[in-house]
Amino acid sequence: MENARSPLYAAIDLGSNSFHMLVVREVQGSVQTLAKIKRKVRLASGLDSNLNLSDEAMQRGWDCLSLFAERLQDIPSDNIRIVATAALRSAKNADVFIKRANQILGHSINVITGEEEACTIYQGVAHTSGGKGKRLVVDIGGASTEVIIGEGFDAAALTSLDMGCVTWLEKHFKDRSLTEKSFDSAIEGAKAVLSPIVKRYCELGWDVCVGASGTVQALQEIMVAQGMDETITLAKLQRLRKQAIGFGQVEELDIDGLTLERALVFPSGLSILIAIFEDLGIESMTLAGGALREGLVYGMMDTMSEQDIRKRTIHSIQSRYQLDDIHADNVAKTAQSLLQQCGADWIAEPVAPVMLDAAAKLHEIGMSIGFKKDGEHAAYLLDSLDLPGFTRAQKKLLAEMLRHYREQLIPIAPQSAISPNSANRLLRLLRIAVLLCHRRDSKAIPAVTLKANGDSLELTMPDNWLNANVLMATELTLEAERQSDNHWPLNIA
Amino acid sequence: MENARSPLYAAIDLGSNSFHMLVVREVQGSVQTLAKIKRKVRLASGLDSNLNLSDEAMQRGWDCLSLFAERLQDIPSDNIRIVATAALRSAKNADVFIKRANQILGHSINVITGEEEACTIYQGVAHTSGGKGKRLVVDIGGASTEVIIGEGFDAAALTSLDMGCVTWLEKHFKDRSLTEKSFDSAIEGAKAVLSPIVKRYCELGWDVCVGASGTVQALQEIMVAQGMDETITLAKLQRLRKQAIGFGQVEELDIDGLTLERALVFPSGLSILIAIFEDLGIESMTLAGGALREGLVYGMMDTMSEQDIRKRTIHSIQSRYQLDDIHADNVAKTAQSLLQQCGADWIAEPVAPVMLDAAAKLHEIGMSIGFKKDGEHAAYLLDSLDLPGFTRAQKKLLAEMLRHYREQLIPIAPQSAISPNSANRLLRLLRIAVLLCHRRDSKAIPAVTLKANGDSLELTMPDNWLNANVLMATELTLEAERQSDNHWPLNIA
Repeated sequence: MENARSPLYAAIDLGSNSFHMLVVREVQGSVQTLAKIKRKVRLASGLDSNLNLSDEAMQRGWDCLSLFAERLQDIPSDNIRIVATAALRSAKNADVFIKRANQILGHSINVITGEEEACTIYQGVAHTSGGKGKRLVVDIGGASTEVIIGEGFDAAALTSLDMGCVTWLEKHFKDRSLTEKSFDSAIEGAKAVLSPIVKRYCELGWDVCVGASGTVQALQEIMVAQGMDETITLAKLQRLRKQAIGFGQVEELDIDGLTLERALVFPSGLSILIAIFEDLGIESMTLAGGALREGLVYGMMDTMSEQDIRKRTIHSIQSRYQLDDIHADNVAKTAQSLLQQCGADWIAEPVAPVMLDAAAKLHEIGMSIGFKKDGEHAAYLLDSLDLPGFTRAQKKLLAEMLRHYREQLIPIAPQSAISPNSANRLLRLLRIAVLLCHRRDSKAIPAVTLKANGDSLELTMPDNWLNANVLMATELTLEAERQSDNHWPLNIA
Repeated sequence: MENARSPLYAAIDLGSNSFHMLVVREVQGSVQTLAKIKRKVRLASGLDSNLNLSDEAMQRGWDCLSLFAERLQDIPSDNIRIVATAALRSAKNADVFIKRANQILGHSINVITGEEEACTIYQGVAHTSGGKGKRLVVDIGGASTEVIIGEGFDAAALTSLDMGCVTWLEKHFKDRSLTEKSFDSAIEGAKAVLSPIVKRYCELGWDVCVGASGTVQALQEIMVAQGMDETITLAKLQRLRKQAIGFGQVEELDIDGLTLERALVFPSGLSILIAIFEDLGIESMTLAGGALREGLVYGMMDTMSEQDIRKRTIHSIQSRYQLDDIHADNVAKTAQSLLQQCGADWIAEPVAPVMLDAAAKLHEIGMSIGFKKDGEHAAYLLDSLDLPGFTRAQKKLLAEMLRHYREQLIPIAPQSAISPNSANRLLRLLRIAVLLCHRRDSKAIPAVTLKANGDSLELTMPDNWLNANVLMATELTLEAERQSDNHWPLNIA
């Protein structure tokens, strides 16, 4: 049973607000979470004006670590990473805390510099986000904010800024009132901290921007709850700022999708994000699939070296679900060829070929659960699985494409990754490709021609092919009827 | 990618009513269905009074086979089994049909005897049903009914009777009216056919009885739709007979859970089943997981030799989902020891230990989809997966046990495998076992004592153990609160 007893890995992060422990194992190229333990230790709030940690705060930290220590006993030393960030970086008596903490854990805590923190966060993002080109990463923590530019697994600029959603809450929303003034002060304050790096970062430039941390996570949950798409824009941030001011007080905040746990630090995190959007001129941002802890975990696994995260994810899922990868690749190639024949403007979104490829490569995943309703099973899996490299909206699109990839044809349910029209066109191509590859043999795939004219498709089979292949001819005819019944004419000749 | 390109297998069954083709592959000890093709050829209805097949019926058969032939091209010859049953056994001009059919298929059809059919059906049942002891198998086909007694993979008595739900429909419900008289005639007719084997079968005896075929499947669907448990009894059959008579005509049948497709041959199949229940004195019957086609498929796979079907299924699922089997076995052993300490009468059902064992061995299956909501994922999988050896009701019980196997405790949702009280007691033991094995290390499992007194449980830990293991102590205390909050006192000392 390959990998079943693969060793455990643990990453512990002594943050300014919470301590986290993550226990995982590697399963055929995927990281599988086995345990998560989190305690709100609020170390930073135990720092006095001289930057000394109080005895009480230290005791809360040690108590938490003795719980973690129990789980660490059974994990090989080489597979454990323990880091401490801003609060312990700045505490003058950090050594007192660390000495005892090391004894409790039986392992050494590494108090990392801001730059090391930024570097690890970047690795966590790089291992969990898809797409190509230069990437701007923003992670708003409790007491520090990391801003990074990189490409692939390499970071080109690493900065840790001395502001965070907890410190900004205390500084700019001390009386918990939400006013234009408090927001302005928080945003202006953030811009002042940001100013030294603006020029360099803008010169370096980037192609995509991803955000990590609770603030960005909260934003995405709000957008999903309010039926918006997952892309964060300055306009949406400004709208939320207005909404927040309408409630007057932090305690009164009642925004659809905002959990109580996140509400307290939401206005301060939002202010910092607005400042970053405005001064770096960010157009849009999506949520990263991981950050600091993921960076620690992936850093320990030397098998995780494939740079194309989506490719790695698909390969791992094919392997974990024992999919017939050769057949899946045939369907993917056929689908891609159909897409190309339709011309570049038939589906406008640049991400469309990637989605078609992923859907084709995973199209039989539902059969691993059962032949009947395999589309439903596929949709359930793709919606629920962690798929590094794919955003939430992209996972949803894949799920909806596979829900009806064969048999009954139902137009794709609402999703926000691409336009409904493009999604349905991808579905049509996928279904045709699946039928053309029905014999599961690359030598038996007919060389077809496909012409698109608006919603009309004209599929031309090789000469005499339909007569010689009765079963597939029957299935293609049925498919032509199904597409045409949906007002998507498909002619087969 | 192990098994991903495992060879395909095909089983074709030229039945009296329909022709079926099944394409499967083996995935780590499980049979995965890749395609099913079925055509209602109605060969038997093309037999004239001299038992000659009409030209039209033969043509319908050949047309269907030419569709099957297309899919057969890519499957190795050794992995193909094609059998014909009653209609072709009895047709005088069968050789005319077979000769052309063999040419179309490019493979030879094997017209099997009634005894060979019974033998293959028994293998299909043996490979998909759990439990120990002697097994009575009943399969009501269109033109023949097989009755078999066997144990493990060995059949001790094999009989194919010359009656079926299609022939009985034509003989006893020719005018399609449902009356006491028509049912009596059908039942008496069936008893006459059955009489030569009654004495021998009753002398051989059996421990469990399973039914295959559409009639039994239809009965189970009706029971599920009407909220009954899945066990078929004579009382339930008589109730359905009464219900059917109330509708007066076959065309008027409107029984909850009965599909239109099955309605026509339902009264005739029901009559045959009542006759068999009465004369063999059957107490209860459950639905088999497979029959003829499954017998053909498993017969080709020489790796499928494990006699304990449930064990084989669990091992295969552990492997397919990359579960940590050593950890799962530890939880299973711990749970079993807790169950034994509660005494034999704490949970009355004999199947309870088997269910607890299976739930424990698969308890982490949901984590293969995601850590968050892993109980939901586990329930989804166990409800949907084909689990040879487990009945539908047992699968449902396993799903409900795993839905809340950790964290929040919710009593088990309605199921019909065991009593609600027993199900909840199993859940309590499973949850405790999972907590006791939290460190995933067999050496770190505490040797506990468990005493049951009605719904009260008293768990005694080793001396000083709670002080030395703070994290697990915290979790056990929380669990004690959760169980006690559900009016199931759990004390930990």
